[in-house]
Amino acid sequence: MAKRRYWEEYSVGEEITTGAITIGEAHIFQFAGLSTDFHPLHVNEEYAKGTQFGKRIAHGPMIFGMSVGLITSSGIWGDAAIALLGFDNIRIPAPVFIGDTIHVKVKFKEKRESRKPDRGIMTSECECRNQRDEVVMAFDQIQLFHRQGVSNA
Amino acid sequence: MAKRRYWEEYSVGEEITTGAITIGEAHIFQFAGLSTDFHPLHVNEEYAKGTQFGKRIAHGPMIFGMSVGLITSSGIWGDAAIALLGFDNIRIPAPVFIGDTIHVKVKFKEKRESRKPDRGIMTSECECRNQRDEVVMAFDQIQLFHRQGVSNA
Amino acid sequence: MAKRRYWEEYSVGEEITTGAITIGEAHIFQFAGLSTDFHPLHVNEEYAKGTQFGKRIAHGPMIFGMSVGLITSSGIWGDAAIALLGFDNIRIPAPVFIGDTIHVKVKFKEKRESRKPDRGIMTSECECRNQRDEVVMAFDQIQLFHRQGVSNA
Amino acid sequence: MAKRRYWEEYSVGEEITTGAITIGEAHIFQFAGLSTDFHPLHVNEEYAKGTQFGKRIAHGPMIFGMSVGLITSSGIWGDAAIALLGFDNIRIPAPVFIGDTIHVKVKFKEKRESRKPDRGIMTSECECRNQRDEVVMAFDQIQLFHRQGVSNA
Amino acid sequence: MAKRRYWEEYSVGEEITTGAITIGEAHIFQFAGLSTDFHPLHVNEEYAKGTQFGKRIAHGPMIFGMSVGLITSSGIWGDAAIALLGFDNIRIPAPVFIGDTIHVKVKFKEKRESRKPDRGIMTSECECRNQRDEVVMAFDQIQLFHRQGVSNA
Amino acid sequence: MAKRRYWEEYSVGEEITTGAITIGEAHIFQFAGLSTDFHPLHVNEEYAKGTQFGKRIAHGPMIFGMSVGLITSSGIWGDAAIALLGFDNIRIPAPVFIGDTIHVKVKFKEKRESRKPDRGIMTSECECRNQRDEVVMAFDQIQLFHRQGVSNA
Repeated sequence: MAKRRYWEEYSVGEEITTGAITIGEAHIFQFAGLSTDFHPLHVNEEYAKGTQFGKRIAHGPMIFGMSVGLITSSGIWGDAAIALLGFDNIRIPAPVFIGDTIHVKVKFKEKRESRKPDRGIMTSECECRNQRDEVVMAFDQIQLFHRQGVSNA
Repeated sequence: MAKRRYWEEYSVGEEITTGAITIGEAHIFQFAGLSTDFHPLHVNEEYAKGTQFGKRIAHGPMIFGMSVGLITSSGIWGDAAIALLGFDNIRIPAPVFIGDTIHVKVKFKEKRESRKPDRGIMTSECECRNQRDEVVMAFDQIQLFHRQGVSNA
Repeated sequence: MAKRRYWEEYSVGEEITTGAITIGEAHIFQFAGLSTDFHPLHVNEEYAKGTQFGKRIAHGPMIFGMSVGLITSSGIWGDAAIALLGFDNIRIPAPVFIGDTIHVKVKFKEKRESRKPDRGIMTSECECRNQRDEVVMAFDQIQLFHRQGVSNA
Repeated sequence: MAKRRYWEEYSVGEEITTGAITIGEAHIFQFAGLSTDFHPLHVNEEYAKGTQFGKRIAHGPMIFGMSVGLITSSGIWGDAAIALLGFDNIRIPAPVFIGDTIHVKVKFKEKRESRKPDRGIMTSECECRNQRDEVVMAFDQIQLFHRQGVSNA
Repeated sequence: MAKRRYWEEYSVGEEITTGAITIGEAHIFQFAGLSTDFHPLHVNEEYAKGTQFGKRIAHGPMIFGMSVGLITSSGIWGDAAIALLGFDNIRIPAPVFIGDTIHVKVKFKEKRESRKPDRGIMTSECECRNQRDEVVMAFDQIQLFHRQGVSNA
Repeated sequence: MAKRRYWEEYSVGEEITTGAITIGEAHIFQFAGLSTDFHPLHVNEEYAKGTQFGKRIAHGPMIFGMSVGLITSSGIWGDAAIALLGFDNIRIPAPVFIGDTIHVKVKFKEKRESRKPDRGIMTSECECRNQRDEVVMAFDQIQLFHRQGVSNA
């Protein structure tokens, strides 16, 4: 696909799929060490055996960070995105286990003009899915884009 | 503080402050490698010099992950929290630079009973702040807790 | 438990247990890379197969570092500990393998006043144990604490 | 073996074998994060299952880096090597999988005097081999050495 | 640019430039730990001060690995590349220091048909350059590609 | 030096010096993440400014682990050492800061025969020193060695 440069080049309803990555035990220890979160559900296999999950699960915010990263590294934003404004409605419907492989489905959900004539805002509906295509995390990503606007009229 | 075990032990309006951590260059490279996001704003000092920020900034989802981790490792949830349901309203009002030191302010914002008599839900308003007490990230964290409920009547 | 602030708040004979962590292959490679110790017993599975252990074992000083870290992150020292003076009698009665889960038992063993009226010294007997409660490392940790002393009389 | 100091101490045809290291999943994720190369053949187990290899393989340049490192850490260059001039003929005859254990065979292949009287050049033929002694990578390493030269005559 | 699928889509003489990355101290320690190469020129600042470089330099094979990775993550190979056959003529004309920012210039140098009708080989001339556009590493990368061949005639 | 194979080859009073390594900020974050010890003295620059040290210091057990590793990777034990029995008298006379460069002085202190005729025990006095040759950590390392014993008589 050609590299996008403007907000106008994204169409509501369009969908893309990112690359995928397998979650290793090393990711979980790395994220525990980065985030200071050593909850036994993530780092203690003996404890995790006794939970409803039966084994260690990945940290939710790690899956979130990897999802946002996979979207960025897919090249989808090209040179069009200026800034990340925020995220809404992060939900975690299912756990991610060591050995699962995740990818992200992104659907351009809503566009609105910014007050500035050369800026546009878009909200994308993102679903992180595992190798069985189950949604393991969902969130809306809100970004500011370059807009051609009236100057191109 | 004593270790909390039930939803009833958290009071709306109560505030706590987590420990703090200094952001190193190594964190940013580590998160880039974890998330696959090597955007030049994070990993290319020459590029970053030419932006409005003037130097490299941390990935937003990394600051988010560290914020959630600092809350968890503060011990505030004790044995009371059962599951992380999601997050709302993540906003990123200011950048985090290499050398900044972040901590999180958590305010218990809203509580409601779950349909299950032994479960309660609480939403916490979280603000990640830097060493100048500027808010660099804000979000609401929604969790499920053990509730004593009527069995204590 | 409430956060301790003074040497007087620790009683000889009292015991605490820390959180636990599962040892991953990634920990061993990380510690090899940190310490420069790539002894084949730690990083070469083919070699390790031919030893009395039959597989790779964790570096002793890594288990020591994780043990001391688990004690610190348990929160047991509160605001009372001023400095780590040293360690004695480190012994390594059994190996730790990839997949083992370790925790630490700490027993306050001996207390003595420092020459300074507001300082006290305490030695703690520490045992790192695996998931079968076998002692894999033992050591004495010596620390300097804040003491209320006569000023509280 | 005694520590070599001069180009004259290396004999064409002489061979040495380095230490060995087992390749872990963590190495592959670490190298992906270092190199920015997240090709699915390295980080996506589901994708790799469908390839001729049937599972994830290590990055070639990682095996190259580890091979050169194993040669250096074997101590073979002692104080004699001054600089690494380059490499030729890097070939990758077979894949390296997670769990394989690699070592390097080095054969001193060719020596020639530098224009400077106190410098010599040597090319070493290097073969990285796995636990079944299959060559997984081959390359020639060219280095500059201290030479005693005529001053010893 | 559109995603390439065949050997025919690459033209000898065409050039591309990859993204860039700043080299941090953490990269060097990470690569030392990965490769087992703790030569003082890389990890001992006191030693490095006394060398011709005056400070620590990055490992050559790390710069090589990052260069190959930056080429891959640029997306230049699309779905066309099948396998990495090898590298030739790796040369290291200048050191890379902590804080330098590197990128890679790739020039398609030579193409030849494989014996198989649906395969083609291409050699690319790669130059890793720093922020002053000085060449710090040069190498030829040889790859196997999908070829449309006569089946498209 | 030639590779030692027996306890008899070590002489009480003999001294060796290991290689050296510069401590980076990345080491401290890596060790915090490995050990779960995020004490503010190690990871919070703002807090550390207000302490007697004025800046962040390295974790004692990390310096210990690196010291033991530097001894091992110096090659001093050759094929003679069988097992690490333990450590005594670990003391921490001075802090290690980011940017310091440490090495270890090892003095063979005491030898005694094991009950087994082919085993010997040796205690080595180890001092980790910084770039100003100040002792930052001291400890005794106790090891079991192969002994030639009477079979050589």
